[in-house]
Amino acid sequence: MSAIRLLVIGADAAGMSAAHQALRTAGPGLAVTVLEATGDTSYSACGIPYWIAGDVPGGDALVARTAEQHRAAGIDLRFGATATAIDRQADTVTYQDADGEQVLGYDELVIATGASAVVRDWAVDPGTGRRYAGVAPVKTLADGAAWLDLLAGLPGSGGRVVVAGGGYIGVEMAEAARRRGHEVTVITRTRVMSSLDPDLSARVEAGMRAAGVRVVTGSPVVRLDVAGGRVRGVYTAEGERHPADLVVLALGVTPNTGFLDLDKLPSGPGGGLRPEPDGSLADGIWAAGDCCEARHRLTGAWTYLPLGTHANKQGRIVGTNLVTPGTLRFGGVLGTAITRFAAGPTYLEIARTGLNEHEAAAAGIEVAALVTEGSTASGYMSEADPIAVKLLASPSDHRLVGAQIVGGRGAGKRIDTVATSLWHGATVDDLAWSDLSYAPPFSTAWEIVQIAARRLAERL
Amino acid sequence: MSAIRLLVIGADAAGMSAAHQALRTAGPGLAVTVLEATGDTSYSACGIPYWIAGDVPGGDALVARTAEQHRAAGIDLRFGATATAIDRQADTVTYQDADGEQVLGYDELVIATGASAVVRDWAVDPGTGRRYAGVAPVKTLADGAAWLDLLAGLPGSGGRVVVAGGGYIGVEMAEAARRRGHEVTVITRTRVMSSLDPDLSARVEAGMRAAGVRVVTGSPVVRLDVAGGRVRGVYTAEGERHPADLVVLALGVTPNTGFLDLDKLPSGPGGGLRPEPDGSLADGIWAAGDCCEARHRLTGAWTYLPLGTHANKQGRIVGTNLVTPGTLRFGGVLGTAITRFAAGPTYLEIARTGLNEHEAAAAGIEVAALVTEGSTASGYMSEADPIAVKLLASPSDHRLVGAQIVGGRGAGKRIDTVATSLWHGATVDDLAWSDLSYAPPFSTAWEIVQIAARRLAERL
Repeated sequence: MSAIRLLVIGADAAGMSAAHQALRTAGPGLAVTVLEATGDTSYSACGIPYWIAGDVPGGDALVARTAEQHRAAGIDLRFGATATAIDRQADTVTYQDADGEQVLGYDELVIATGASAVVRDWAVDPGTGRRYAGVAPVKTLADGAAWLDLLAGLPGSGGRVVVAGGGYIGVEMAEAARRRGHEVTVITRTRVMSSLDPDLSARVEAGMRAAGVRVVTGSPVVRLDVAGGRVRGVYTAEGERHPADLVVLALGVTPNTGFLDLDKLPSGPGGGLRPEPDGSLADGIWAAGDCCEARHRLTGAWTYLPLGTHANKQGRIVGTNLVTPGTLRFGGVLGTAITRFAAGPTYLEIARTGLNEHEAAAAGIEVAALVTEGSTASGYMSEADPIAVKLLASPSDHRLVGAQIVGGRGAGKRIDTVATSLWHGATVDDLAWSDLSYAPPFSTAWEIVQIAARRLAERL
Repeated sequence: MSAIRLLVIGADAAGMSAAHQALRTAGPGLAVTVLEATGDTSYSACGIPYWIAGDVPGGDALVARTAEQHRAAGIDLRFGATATAIDRQADTVTYQDADGEQVLGYDELVIATGASAVVRDWAVDPGTGRRYAGVAPVKTLADGAAWLDLLAGLPGSGGRVVVAGGGYIGVEMAEAARRRGHEVTVITRTRVMSSLDPDLSARVEAGMRAAGVRVVTGSPVVRLDVAGGRVRGVYTAEGERHPADLVVLALGVTPNTGFLDLDKLPSGPGGGLRPEPDGSLADGIWAAGDCCEARHRLTGAWTYLPLGTHANKQGRIVGTNLVTPGTLRFGGVLGTAITRFAAGPTYLEIARTGLNEHEAAAAGIEVAALVTEGSTASGYMSEADPIAVKLLASPSDHRLVGAQIVGGRGAGKRIDTVATSLWHGATVDDLAWSDLSYAPPFSTAWEIVQIAARRLAERL
């Protein structure tokens, strides 16, 4: 009996997790080929802003496993191989590489093509079809290297960097550019960290302003001021001009599924694939990672939350199930996320899970919400930093619906306590009275998350 | 109708939480009297080692609410009032104060007398009935002030401090004395942090040794070497002598229930009271805080875990229920706790929840256990510190049974994620696949607690 042919498209977290897990589960009876359009594999995209900030010695440090390591594990990893079509009758994938068009058969196929940074039309020179000079996203290792060059070209402690977008990458790139000494302006359609409600977003904005970042909210970038093919300013929808030597495209990502016949695969309106909880998409075809939507655990609705955590888990689930069907199930996403903004006098940890007020309303879930202010440690300790915890719960059954945290050192990871509560369908009362840890360097005697839960419970 | 008379014995966390919560719930129809043997109220005993270390400006900073604040809230707070007996027929409490013996009637009585540091016979001069000079516990604000004087009497960066006991207070006092520059020896009957299993305890011991602390395990202090009423050394059970200018008594605490007729109240063999989940102990009598045992949430067994977190919660529950019966229930304890050892080159956060291997065996619970090593942050970040997570789970149903964590900054509070899982009866699989937060400064892409859960799940 010949080996089962597993073909994986995409060699980042989801694809390589699937490949390795399948090999671990199946052993030598499996032949694994991975097609990767770029020359990079298994790298931490989340680490790129910190590389740009100067915290990480080099792009190599962001690579969790090298191509050599993958190949040593027995994986036929092919770089520069861009999948262009799937033939589901013939069970083949067509791809382009340096030698032209290739066709490869499979018994099991994993689609893990990830996502690409959104690049708006205004960022692209219609003449050349390329981005204007000085305008770039922050998604790939190549992007990271390009940003190091771009920033190195600016004067030492000067140069104007405009960040288009105020989400995770936007805030992290504002930190990186500010710490490098540049003038930074963040321009966002709504507000910074718009996955937080306006009240907690305002705390992040205030911290960014205190660090000297200019923040423009409620008006997106709509066009560039360009001279000689190079950006020199941006215009917002309100017509305001902001001078710019460099522009960060931090406008989100979009799934790399354009090569698929999406009409014939379960997928959402934004092009995200919609696999079953076991990772299967169609007969013999699996999908995982940033090219996929996922079910929200609280609402059951499909949602697009492309994060490395999900990609790793989904890849592992697919790699297990394609060998031993039905072993693992993806339990859905809560929208848990964390970041920080640390520059100048500001150090803020920012985290959220579940639904915010807007998302709850959109899902038809009535919520009560309350912001509780407190301290990350006992007030008499030098470790004590301010922290604000916003909790959302259902007035009818007291169930937690979401949480947002903004605060000093130790604030952010507290979101995991609430996420774990949410995962189990806990009420605010459960959270308020459970047995969490306390010592003066780490919390107040009533842990702030529990004070927040108790206060909200008393108001429901 | 005259006001209901609430009498509270003990003016620290449990008693004052009960008093204030009862007033908030009942309003002016309640007359609250609190008897306190000392002259202190509502202070953070947990903060005393940090005060001694020099992190806290003064003992006043440890007082959450002053006597004046309690009195301004309408509480008749009586200092120097030591309860000596309860007459359950007459519904009266007899107490001693500066004016002699007093008797006070009550409609509702709250026993919140707390606990006292264990002082072994060897620490006491049989002639005077007082502790030898240089030998003192660390429990009350007076103890804290005494320790500042004792340490100030030692030569600048010298003097030999022996800590008898290797638990939370022992480790914290070793940190305090070491940071002040003294020679420190910790002597413990079993091992340091014996609420951890030996494998994780060994990591704490190694960290303490790296900071220059001498650690003597497996042999308790059994007698002192005394000259002129002042300690100058200790002897262990093995007969070894360790020179000592000062000796810290860090041997645990015992409930202050000696004045009660324990034969006629629900109580354990160690003298801890055993209230119902609503806080009631007998008709019209309630109990809360360090004078009580509590039900372990996992085993249902009575256990003595005197911690400020429980005292605050139990006090609040009693204060609510004595006005509006049956409103709140104490959900039991998991044994969640956290501390740190930080001195010299060592910075270790130490936390645990649930049962350790010894406790599980004693409860007849079969467990599998696994230590997983990882990083508090992505490996390429400067925030990355080693962390070891030990998880225990039941092989039959995969349910979590306990966790222990030792690691660098950000390690300890991760215990709350496991404690929340335990609170909800989660399996290691639940924990492994739930949606926790990730960004490079805060965790690896697979959060270490989830790696630990996944690895253990795969072995069950």
